[in-house]
Amino acid sequence: MSSTVGQVIKCKAAVAWEAGKPLVIEEVEVAPPQAMEVRIKILFTSLCHTDVYFWEAKGQKPLFPRIFGHEAAGIVESVGEGVTELAPGDHVLPVFTGECKECTHCLSEESNMCSLLRINTDRGEMINDGQSRFSINGQPVYHFLGTSTFSEYTVVHSGCVAKINPQAPLDKVCILSCGFCTGFGATVNVAKPTKGSTVAVFGLGAVGLSAAEGARYAGASRIIGVDLNPKRFEEAKKFGVTEFVNPNDYDRPVQEVIAEMTNGGVDRSVECTGNINAMISAFECVHDGWGVAVLVGVPHKDAVFKTHPVNFLTERTLKGTFYGHYKPRTDLPGVVEMYMNKEIELEKFITHEVSFSEINKAFDLMLQGASLRCIIRMDD
Amino acid sequence: MSSTVGQVIKCKAAVAWEAGKPLVIEEVEVAPPQAMEVRIKILFTSLCHTDVYFWEAKGQKPLFPRIFGHEAAGIVESVGEGVTELAPGDHVLPVFTGECKECTHCLSEESNMCSLLRINTDRGEMINDGQSRFSINGQPVYHFLGTSTFSEYTVVHSGCVAKINPQAPLDKVCILSCGFCTGFGATVNVAKPTKGSTVAVFGLGAVGLSAAEGARYAGASRIIGVDLNPKRFEEAKKFGVTEFVNPNDYDRPVQEVIAEMTNGGVDRSVECTGNINAMISAFECVHDGWGVAVLVGVPHKDAVFKTHPVNFLTERTLKGTFYGHYKPRTDLPGVVEMYMNKEIELEKFITHEVSFSEINKAFDLMLQGASLRCIIRMDD
Repeated sequence: MSSTVGQVIKCKAAVAWEAGKPLVIEEVEVAPPQAMEVRIKILFTSLCHTDVYFWEAKGQKPLFPRIFGHEAAGIVESVGEGVTELAPGDHVLPVFTGECKECTHCLSEESNMCSLLRINTDRGEMINDGQSRFSINGQPVYHFLGTSTFSEYTVVHSGCVAKINPQAPLDKVCILSCGFCTGFGATVNVAKPTKGSTVAVFGLGAVGLSAAEGARYAGASRIIGVDLNPKRFEEAKKFGVTEFVNPNDYDRPVQEVIAEMTNGGVDRSVECTGNINAMISAFECVHDGWGVAVLVGVPHKDAVFKTHPVNFLTERTLKGTFYGHYKPRTDLPGVVEMYMNKEIELEKFITHEVSFSEINKAFDLMLQGASLRCIIRMDD
Repeated sequence: MSSTVGQVIKCKAAVAWEAGKPLVIEEVEVAPPQAMEVRIKILFTSLCHTDVYFWEAKGQKPLFPRIFGHEAAGIVESVGEGVTELAPGDHVLPVFTGECKECTHCLSEESNMCSLLRINTDRGEMINDGQSRFSINGQPVYHFLGTSTFSEYTVVHSGCVAKINPQAPLDKVCILSCGFCTGFGATVNVAKPTKGSTVAVFGLGAVGLSAAEGARYAGASRIIGVDLNPKRFEEAKKFGVTEFVNPNDYDRPVQEVIAEMTNGGVDRSVECTGNINAMISAFECVHDGWGVAVLVGVPHKDAVFKTHPVNFLTERTLKGTFYGHYKPRTDLPGVVEMYMNKEIELEKFITHEVSFSEINKAFDLMLQGASLRCIIRMDD
């Protein structure tokens, strides 16, 4: 057992002191885990758009200083009181949403939106006592999404921690804790294309390409990628995308273009941009009688979804999903096994790798649109 | 074999000469069935709102003279060339939509919207030759929904005819050919509530009460009926409705009222009014994480469905359905068997009965809101 158990750990963390300003590697103090909490040594983390979005703090409530990061993998250092399903040494993925296994959502087979541990982007403290476990010279530093993985050690609620196969390479499976599962699960768990079917994917970033990977995995015969940036088309071929549509190339709605390409519409569509017009197009481009559209991208808070109700009455379905409908603790170990069994490919999502001291490079790469996933190695 | 085979039949039909004017019982000539058509002796028919809506012709293209009627049961008199699955003497339900068994929709397990025989309210002739089979002194009389059951004999495409158990009482099962299946199927085939779940039904007319019957059949623990007319509440109890909400009784949206009654929303809702605000409420009143709303009612052609997309992203589903997702030829015989096995009750929907000569009384009863279903006996 580690000698740090029950002690404050001093370690390095990348602290965001102000909105949009480069992170600063600082020595932080990480308090021991309280009841139902776990302290994790992070080995690999990666950068997701959501980190950048809240770091820029252009719309939402600014909360600084804060430690961002929510896609990661690590090893349990110690556990708090009452934690029975995790122990020091376990290989784990911290997740930005949780699974208490007791609320109505956790008890429902259909939902993964745990009432207790559901994502809360405004919260900067632990739910146990409303305090942060991070501090610098006594000054608290806010948590982010309950994970704050841009730190060598972090404290996470045990309901937000998936225990995985210790053989799994953590520098690869770390991307399962957000982006990959969000897109892949939207396709395989929610849209559920059948073998030979047609699928449209709106937005060819990491989440959209994960959705395409889901369509490839499901045996779709045609995967139509829709994006405003034609540079993404070449890369998307690696993810099984067979055809490309750039809405800017047409003077009519893209749903009409897709309906013409597919004799009335695709069987399934997955929307991964969050743009309201893309959402409407994604719904209206599915075939009547059986088409299912799935919304994944997070919309602007004032966005309004509008369509003629006859588009529903002609037997189209519209669903939304959150984290690919995966229950973090129950389902993630199985996704790791899919990777171990070579059923899914993660390597192609990892376009860059940097050391922890270079973490701001990961931000630059994402802002330039140059990376899909940039892995940040903590042990440099 | 009937001596009328291949001959024009002279019989009585209730002809609508003008929009909104009482039907007139006339002697009409009914031509023999052409290729893939069937001539049916109608024994019982009932009146549905859709007949009244097109008879009033307030919005849509008026098409007169016309023979209305689409909920009915009868016996095959003769069949046209190429008809192999039906023979004279078969007991049948004519249906306003069809199943060719060859198009992509019929070959899909998910759709019942046959490309060839899908409902077409504007068409007044048979698809085979674009002509009517009805005439009065040589003047053609238009068909309605391909069924025109307000006639002692009618000609229907064989793909729109379900062959049923000859033991089934035709004066009861005639209501399966439209209203009952539309509501009941929306619940059991599309919303699919589980045992013990909560269901809201918007609109407590015949279709809404059929949806409620579906919820009762599925074992729902609470069935919340929503209607602006409180007179409907007492009757609705017979159909398993356990609670009632009149939106006029509240100064806040009915979806909020229902969410409060049900700790966050119902598990399933079924919208049977066609009013766009009811559609939005029906969607927004389902629980996040697992709620499914199903649209059944036909909206105004200019209606726009609007909601915040976050209502989808929090894992709600919105679907539309047509004729309860039943494939007429494949599925209707099984629904008749459910009635024969006493799994479903049809008697409680039948509030009135008139003779054919009194058919205008059926219209009056419906316009007064006094009837659910009024059976019209053809053999008077």
